Amino acid sequence: MQRLGPWSREAWAALALQLLRPPRAPCAGATLHFRRVQGGLVQPPGREFAEARLKTQLESDKEKSNFVIKTPKGTRDLGPQQMAIREKILTAVISCFKRHGAKGLDTPAFELKEVLTEKYGENSRLIYELKDQGGELLALRYDLTVPFARYLAMNKIKKIKRYHIGKVWRRESPSITQGRYREFCQCDFDIAGHFDPMIPDAECLKIIYEILNALQLGDFLIKVNDRRILHGMFAVCGVPDNKFHLISASVDKLGKMSWKDVRQEMVGKMALAPEVADCIGVYIQQHGGVSLVEQLLQDPKLSQNKQAQEGLRDLKLLFEYLTLFGITEKISFDLSLARGLDYYTGVIYEAVLLQTAARQGEEPLGVGSVAAGGRYDGLVGMFDPKGRKVPCVGLSVGVERIFSIVEQRMEATEKIQVTETQVLVAAAQKNFLKERMKLIAELWDAGIKAEMLYKKNPSFLTQLHYCEETGIPLVAIIGEQELKDGVIKLRSVASREEVDIKRENIVTEIQRRMSES
Amino acid sequence: MQRLGPWSREAWAALALQLLRPPRAPCAGATLHFRRVQGGLVQPPGREFAEARLKTQLESDKEKSNFVIKTPKGTRDLGPQQMAIREKILTAVISCFKRHGAKGLDTPAFELKEVLTEKYGENSRLIYELKDQGGELLALRYDLTVPFARYLAMNKIKKIKRYHIGKVWRRESPSITQGRYREFCQCDFDIAGHFDPMIPDAECLKIIYEILNALQLGDFLIKVNDRRILHGMFAVCGVPDNKFHLISASVDKLGKMSWKDVRQEMVGKMALAPEVADCIGVYIQQHGGVSLVEQLLQDPKLSQNKQAQEGLRDLKLLFEYLTLFGITEKISFDLSLARGLDYYTGVIYEAVLLQTAARQGEEPLGVGSVAAGGRYDGLVGMFDPKGRKVPCVGLSVGVERIFSIVEQRMEATEKIQVTETQVLVAAAQKNFLKERMKLIAELWDAGIKAEMLYKKNPSFLTQLHYCEETGIPLVAIIGEQELKDGVIKLRSVASREEVDIKRENIVTEIQRRMSES
Repeated sequence: MQRLGPWSREAWAALALQLLRPPRAPCAGATLHFRRVQGGLVQPPGREFAEARLKTQLESDKEKSNFVIKTPKGTRDLGPQQMAIREKILTAVISCFKRHGAKGLDTPAFELKEVLTEKYGENSRLIYELKDQGGELLALRYDLTVPFARYLAMNKIKKIKRYHIGKVWRRESPSITQGRYREFCQCDFDIAGHFDPMIPDAECLKIIYEILNALQLGDFLIKVNDRRILHGMFAVCGVPDNKFHLISASVDKLGKMSWKDVRQEMVGKMALAPEVADCIGVYIQQHGGVSLVEQLLQDPKLSQNKQAQEGLRDLKLLFEYLTLFGITEKISFDLSLARGLDYYTGVIYEAVLLQTAARQGEEPLGVGSVAAGGRYDGLVGMFDPKGRKVPCVGLSVGVERIFSIVEQRMEATEKIQVTETQVLVAAAQKNFLKERMKLIAELWDAGIKAEMLYKKNPSFLTQLHYCEETGIPLVAIIGEQELKDGVIKLRSVASREEVDIKRENIVTEIQRRMSES
Repeated sequence: MQRLGPWSREAWAALALQLLRPPRAPCAGATLHFRRVQGGLVQPPGREFAEARLKTQLESDKEKSNFVIKTPKGTRDLGPQQMAIREKILTAVISCFKRHGAKGLDTPAFELKEVLTEKYGENSRLIYELKDQGGELLALRYDLTVPFARYLAMNKIKKIKRYHIGKVWRRESPSITQGRYREFCQCDFDIAGHFDPMIPDAECLKIIYEILNALQLGDFLIKVNDRRILHGMFAVCGVPDNKFHLISASVDKLGKMSWKDVRQEMVGKMALAPEVADCIGVYIQQHGGVSLVEQLLQDPKLSQNKQAQEGLRDLKLLFEYLTLFGITEKISFDLSLARGLDYYTGVIYEAVLLQTAARQGEEPLGVGSVAAGGRYDGLVGMFDPKGRKVPCVGLSVGVERIFSIVEQRMEATEKIQVTETQVLVAAAQKNFLKERMKLIAELWDAGIKAEMLYKKNPSFLTQLHYCEETGIPLVAIIGEQELKDGVIKLRSVASREEVDIKRENIVTEIQRRMSES
């Protein structure tokens, strides 16, 4: 990475302006003073410089008065309904991670800039950097994997199984933001340590399977490949070493693009020899199960490549383990799967949802990746002063895409309950605020989820309406008669049934009803 | 705010360098080309320019090799033990918020810079800004309150009760970082809407009480005051309007500093007349319950001030409600409580832990604020184009301080369980990997939390040791004899008791044992 000195943009701008203003004046290079630029936009040089400055000053003021309250581009608030859905998803994901014995971990939202650079290849330009306000140069994390590797190296941890739920930030360019957010939540599970081959890898695939099953997102497929097979294939087909990255990215487009278009890109844009492209084409259009692995192990070309052989042998073992886990029916060995991130070194995988029961004879359509991951045996070593490696394999569940699917379905089929309130404490007549407050405190203290309206004298109808609106199932009603009789009237909102409960038994009665429902 | 044009720091630097290199060369202002700066640190002009560049290049390389892997200043990772503790705390807090009927909300980690400016007074300088990478100017949120107000105004919401758990970021200066983090988690609960006075305010205090009780942090006290009483008192004592902020900050130090020192600051640093300071001193050294409120309502000076009277009357009502909620024994009306944030307009409060049973005759010592909040009726209006107000009252629980207390205590008294694993699937002899994998998949599918070691042939002792280390209570053992007999040996780690369970009953047996424990 190129590095600029400790000067801020303002300082550089001031320096440049000093040199430029007034235009065509004698050069002042030898007697520079650095001062902060005051007011308005600082403009590059031009004619009528003062006028231009004034104009931008005015524009800046205008902009201010037109300031629209919004969230930053590519981000959004999650309102109560959306939070209720996200909670459901996260609960399913976390409970699966815990079922597999993972420990929790949290890392800061930002890292030293140096921690993130040179880890994401081309995508590094999407990293959000913090302003240099004096002190360290920082950047928002781009994923949870690099911070995990940094954590392992920093604490010299050689073995751990951890999960991490957290937001990550990517400055996706506008053209690719369809459905992509610049802030989104990732759920990562990773196994670090030296173990026997493919045992942790198989568990990662089992976890993806369990989560997608639990969330009932419809039919899905987990595509599996191995970076070593991909690279071996490139080598035997005659792709020059320096083009592996480019061709890899091209290969990854198969599925979104036809083979014809992918080939076009390879031969045209990437200047690959047509026969090399065709060789790749023969391989990457294949997908299947363990029999394809076995077939490729015998492939005259691939069998000559050590890397490819290693990858294929490991995949064969992986399929054996996946059979024991009973999940092979959802696994597809797909030679076109390449994955974007630089740091993968072995097995890679990606789960896609299949649109089932397409309407009006439409083709079943993939709606994109909802979970993905792979093996990255070199990343931790990048942080270790002596380059000591800690092999890792892991997966990341993309909450955002799953979210839109679940949201769509829940909105269509059910009323989303955004609070868990069990009982509303209500008054039948005026002047019962004190009684309501005394009762609700008792309920809270007994752990009952209770609300009351914050008006001194809300109308009875308003209170009932609030229950129906928000889905509160019970109303505890206090009125003159009830006070006289030493009872509370307990009303079921759904059935409208009302029954008098002795004041001293009301907590137990509500608890009994809640445990039944 | 000053604004710079769309040029990046690099572009400005390139421009400046073009103008400067070679030094004293004819000015090239009229024929500028902008190019990216290559390599090393870009240096301001000087003699022996090339030498200076080389030197910094070398320094930069040296710096790189000395690069220490760490988290950014003021931040930290939370490892598995710490995450287990944080989860306990958050569970208690969230369950209380839900018990009070709050809905969830999430907002982005960063906001448009304009959203945050002019909301925090003096503290605005602690806001982390993002680098201008083209596009909007952004800053990391400083608290959860301003984003909440922005959300309400943006969506024209007039009434809501919401909670929000999230990280906030503050560039605290090193001198005040003792125990303060630059990234920390806040748990906020707020009630927005036009309601009858003090009813939502009382609930906020009840919530603080419930949470501190549930967390068993030891004895605590919730200090209460009202911005209107504070301002009324300043007015009747003769503090000039423009010094309210300064004096308020000074008042807030009482407790950490003696009255003598606070008075010294007021009279010296803040140039307050001694008799004005003494007048304030008489008030702010008082604290007590509702009787103090009543006494001050009759105070010859304060009773002449409308603001103070309003505040006192509301506090009286608040105490009435707190009595109904049964929590007044922990409430102290404290005239020295001022709170730092600009946006409060009415009741303010702050919960402090009291160090109980001080050792070796030490004085009981406050260990700082663990929850705080207040009423802010003007903040939402700041975002509304027509200034329409939505009154709000809320509270924020500071997880970090609570965390250190709970951590200390848990480390001293109990083993912290970082995973929830119920059973380890183990092999008694070699070559049982397949059987282990088949069995563990069955357990996972039945929702049982299970682990196995990722070695093909781990020794039996290693497996038992793993259980003891990590607190797994059960071991399901497969061996030659067991396979022959169609059983699994189930071992209790604590009692070392072993019993053979029929293979087909193992899931039910484990579930039965887990539900009993």
